[in-house]
Amino acid sequence: MTRPAATGSCLAQEARGGSRLALSRLLTAVESRTPGAEEALRLLYPLAGGAHVVGITGPPGGGKSTLVAALVAEARARHRAVAVLAIDPSSPVTGGAILGDRIRMQQHAGDRDVFIRSMAARGHLGGLAGTTAESAAVLDACGFGLVFIETVGTGQSEVEVASIADTTVVVQAPEMGDEIQAMKAGLLEVADLVVVNKSDRPGADRAAAQLRAMLDLGNAERAGTSEHSRPRPKRPEVLLASGLDAAGVPELLTALDGHHAGRAGADRPQAARIARARAQVEGILADRSREALWSAARRAETEALLEQVAAHELDPYAAADRLLQQLGTGQPAATSS
Amino acid sequence: MTRPAATGSCLAQEARGGSRLALSRLLTAVESRTPGAEEALRLLYPLAGGAHVVGITGPPGGGKSTLVAALVAEARARHRAVAVLAIDPSSPVTGGAILGDRIRMQQHAGDRDVFIRSMAARGHLGGLAGTTAESAAVLDACGFGLVFIETVGTGQSEVEVASIADTTVVVQAPEMGDEIQAMKAGLLEVADLVVVNKSDRPGADRAAAQLRAMLDLGNAERAGTSEHSRPRPKRPEVLLASGLDAAGVPELLTALDGHHAGRAGADRPQAARIARARAQVEGILADRSREALWSAARRAETEALLEQVAAHELDPYAAADRLLQQLGTGQPAATSS
Repeated sequence: MTRPAATGSCLAQEARGGSRLALSRLLTAVESRTPGAEEALRLLYPLAGGAHVVGITGPPGGGKSTLVAALVAEARARHRAVAVLAIDPSSPVTGGAILGDRIRMQQHAGDRDVFIRSMAARGHLGGLAGTTAESAAVLDACGFGLVFIETVGTGQSEVEVASIADTTVVVQAPEMGDEIQAMKAGLLEVADLVVVNKSDRPGADRAAAQLRAMLDLGNAERAGTSEHSRPRPKRPEVLLASGLDAAGVPELLTALDGHHAGRAGADRPQAARIARARAQVEGILADRSREALWSAARRAETEALLEQVAAHELDPYAAADRLLQQLGTGQPAATSS
Repeated sequence: MTRPAATGSCLAQEARGGSRLALSRLLTAVESRTPGAEEALRLLYPLAGGAHVVGITGPPGGGKSTLVAALVAEARARHRAVAVLAIDPSSPVTGGAILGDRIRMQQHAGDRDVFIRSMAARGHLGGLAGTTAESAAVLDACGFGLVFIETVGTGQSEVEVASIADTTVVVQAPEMGDEIQAMKAGLLEVADLVVVNKSDRPGADRAAAQLRAMLDLGNAERAGTSEHSRPRPKRPEVLLASGLDAAGVPELLTALDGHHAGRAGADRPQAARIARARAQVEGILADRSREALWSAARRAETEALLEQVAAHELDPYAAADRLLQQLGTGQPAATSS
């Protein structure tokens, strides 16, 4: 009971048993990949795999948070346990705090089948996609069959997060500025479903029609050309919704379910599962290397090498090679837990 | 001359000699860390270290590109060689293309002391910050004493890019939406200088006054509390500018020079240089591991393990440990070039 590992396994059991405090603490541990998180995940991971992981992304100002809140309410109306991981980009240094969380939580206060959690976008060892995938697995193992990952689709890491979802929804508002339009074009390439939110605003129908035309064109152009593209048999569906008054939200949840069920035998869900596995494993490998470099025994040597690189006395490839030579025997040793 | 490495060293020599085509090809190679890029960087890196690397970041819609174009024109009026690395978030999958580049290039067409380059925000092996730092070193070694890195400050990777600059400028417009305000608050923590752009618009003076008050408050609250915070002896200066008619731009360039010169003996520039070194070295290490995992000899084994993780038959930590055991001897071997 005194080993840190025991803490992880206790947290895992308590979280599975329904303790929201234990679940919160576990997710905090997962974000920084503590030894306790590793112990917990080794227990929980085999119990996961059944949840539908839905990425909700889009440019800023599209009303993602409000739409997710409406989707949560709709899922609860259908008696489903639902969790939200909101990736918070607001503070790159301190990690920030999502104000909206508290507001959205109030509606479901006391409801044990809703869990809403914000994660800092920055400071994830081994990458945001990896720890997000691990967090989703924890929620999955704790009984949440529907997990939303909400992220602003304007950064490299944030789009990577969207790529690990079983289903990716891109949300936008009818009218948006030029720079945001450019972002949108890129985001559409990862969309399984597109939502024109704030459907009560003027121009929503026209925006949806334009999107359909753009997507038809894009699909024709890209047919089988990009190795990075996911298999996409047909143009993603474009739906209208309003997070504010929940118009179109039941149809959206039904479409999400349809996407999940309809593609069960297709390549896309398997590709997403492999992407999740890869993000986690590569993230853990990167952590192991970093731990070895910055361990008490090596830190001074690592710092001295970086100072030489900073002074341009040594190039970064030569520094990396020296570190790898030093790690040659050290790295595998660092992996025993 | 037939080894790929020779290509890298030839490109390096030609780029140093003034060939813009060679420089372009070299930066393309650096983005994907080819063996040629490695060879070139080993030659060029010791020749770099003198340039002032300035990060220009901020929420979408702040007019960063226009401001950078005005700064480039001002630097040329002062007879300085200037380069721009524009990190393009527009397409996460295909890499996108910055339309603005061509427009901005026209003004300086035929001017050999201006070099403008867009880099895809996605698909960088070993991380965007690392390859951006390497690209800046290449430009530095090729005689560009002032290197702007322009990036939308809304993603984890993009903010990391800002953190490797000697001086980080956060740009915003007078009026912006709520979600963007939240991003801004985080961004301000990494700012050395803040610019209220579009200073001709109503509310610009008020926005600047609010920012100064917010920064004074923030500085008082944070004094020495966050380990992630950079050393910041005083509140960052808040300037008004208009990229469109270049009002305030000469003063901004002078303030940038002042920041660079005034802090030469302080902690901040050294911290930035260490951050650049670390981003490059850790990026190269991550690449080396990834190369080893996905080499022809190991690919099948790696894929089989990931499929087990995807099927939840094996947890990601166990998979990572197995891969590390396999790499135990393989990894150092993969580093000889």
